[in-house]
Amino acid sequence: MKAKVIVTLKKSILDPQGSAVERSLKTMGYPVDSVRIGKFMEVTLAEANKAKAEEVMDEICRKLLANPVIEDYFFELEG
Amino acid sequence: MKAKVIVTLKKSILDPQGSAVERSLKTMGYPVDSVRIGKFMEVTLAEANKAKAEEVMDEICRKLLANPVIEDYFFELEG
Repeated sequence: MKAKVIVTLKKSILDPQGSAVERSLKTMGYPVDSVRIGKFMEVTLAEANKAKAEEVMDEICRKLLANPVIEDYFFELEG
Repeated sequence: MKAKVIVTLKKSILDPQGSAVERSLKTMGYPVDSVRIGKFMEVTLAEANKAKAEEVMDEICRKLLANPVIEDYFFELEG
């Protein structure tokens, strides 16, 4: 079973990487208001049961993929 | 208009960051087969026309957000 995970900084946390890209795009003349940068992860699990896979993914996200203090995570299972 | 962009390494490109996470998860005892890591970006455009916004985003992805030689990108417009 495959999981697509998106980890983003919480709204209240400054995102210097995003600000840098935003400035670059504005300098290049693009009509950009804001840019926020996060991480995308594709995890293939050796677990066919969807409910169990969801449980495992939630634990993986909390323990390793995201830092719950400053980041939000979201995942979607497929296949 | 908001765009959600996902940039991933092409299938044929090695992903050492993903391999490291994969090894960690296996060591921690999780049933993981593989992990690939990419980037997620949320871009707010000052452009209300959807067709025009799509054109701008495609250009932004090609020129700044992704390296088309080693990366694939995918984006979705909303709002």
